[in-house]
Amino acid sequence: MTDKVLGVLGGMGPLASAHFMLRLTLLTPADRDQDHIAAVLWSDPRVPDRNAARSGTGPDPLPWLLRGINGLKSAGCTAIAIPCNTAHGWFEPMARAAGMPILHIVDAAATDLRRIGITRGSIGLMATPATLAMRLYQDRLVAKGWNILEPEPEQMARLVKPAIASVKANRVAEAYAPLAEVVNSLAARGATAVVLGCTEIPLGIQAGPAEALRVPVVDTIDALARASIAWARE
Amino acid sequence: MTDKVLGVLGGMGPLASAHFMLRLTLLTPADRDQDHIAAVLWSDPRVPDRNAARSGTGPDPLPWLLRGINGLKSAGCTAIAIPCNTAHGWFEPMARAAGMPILHIVDAAATDLRRIGITRGSIGLMATPATLAMRLYQDRLVAKGWNILEPEPEQMARLVKPAIASVKANRVAEAYAPLAEVVNSLAARGATAVVLGCTEIPLGIQAGPAEALRVPVVDTIDALARASIAWARE
Repeated sequence: MTDKVLGVLGGMGPLASAHFMLRLTLLTPADRDQDHIAAVLWSDPRVPDRNAARSGTGPDPLPWLLRGINGLKSAGCTAIAIPCNTAHGWFEPMARAAGMPILHIVDAAATDLRRIGITRGSIGLMATPATLAMRLYQDRLVAKGWNILEPEPEQMARLVKPAIASVKANRVAEAYAPLAEVVNSLAARGATAVVLGCTEIPLGIQAGPAEALRVPVVDTIDALARASIAWARE
Repeated sequence: MTDKVLGVLGGMGPLASAHFMLRLTLLTPADRDQDHIAAVLWSDPRVPDRNAARSGTGPDPLPWLLRGINGLKSAGCTAIAIPCNTAHGWFEPMARAAGMPILHIVDAAATDLRRIGITRGSIGLMATPATLAMRLYQDRLVAKGWNILEPEPEQMARLVKPAIASVKANRVAEAYAPLAEVVNSLAARGATAVVLGCTEIPLGIQAGPAEALRVPVVDTIDALARASIAWARE
């Protein structure tokens, strides 16, 4: 038994954070309830849209994010995971307010790439326009030795953005075909793996056949769950 | 947008409460993140075993349950759902401490029975030994006009208890066959539906073919999620 309590800043979207809780549980080696990680999920879907804020067309989500951080702090959490890639664009002010470690989702993805044996070379990156524009993944992964390939702007508009919207509207099955097309297009351009850098994308990809994908994908929900389990057990 | 925030007292087990969050999200009519219900999940798997406490062989979980209730209260929640049937054995002291509505899982199950057209007659009840012994379901459902059939003690020991333990240990697939055998045995005795009055049981039942079950089942995770959505929208 441990006094560690994982805070999960979620609701962005709520399906991704509920799925994160499920994967956190399923990936934890456990024989009984008491072997699992104590966690508090703050699922606030009212946080203003992170993409709209980045493109200057919507309100700033930071006050809402800080409200969640403070709620998790009051609840006695000792580290925080945020199963939303785009929200990591506000990582520094959240980390300053938290006064406890926030497990960075890009570092979790890098650890997961190494776990599946991809330690260098070209990898694909699928994410929201805001995550791509903020260079959340590119700068951190290039610094660690990978070369990053992104979808073409036409693919972002026609395939990636509508697929993310489908998942957020609970129409998960519709998201598979467009997302799989982008994975395979990145593979054709030389990617040896594709990082699914938006927590909605793995949910869409899992709704169809894995064998139709030409390269392995890194599920950032699972990667963050594995990083959380490693934190809880260290 | 609403100021309602659902508190979820979970971790009993953690898979059931994560699954509850997923079902709460999937059953909510929504087109975007902001249409979903704001929620805080307090997932504390360290709560002492509820069955051991009821049989006098383990510590009292009430202080842990009240700690969760207070945590949800401090987080600003305005109603509470508890996706653990056995924990409802401590409903009254929790309700007194909460100072806000707790949505009772047995009332949610009764609403769900009526939703599928089962308004009277014999129904089966599968639950933990503690839930059965506390008569959580029997008294409330008999008062509403149903007649309750329970598994035989031999079936509880050989089938129900080991299946619940399998789910808690993340071995969900193993739980299906024993649980389906009990559902069909209750149907053979005259049950027109079976209430799955332990949040682990639906997870096991869903791991196998629904068409092998001779009568409809009421999933108390889904029933509580539907009751929560009705509360949020009223």
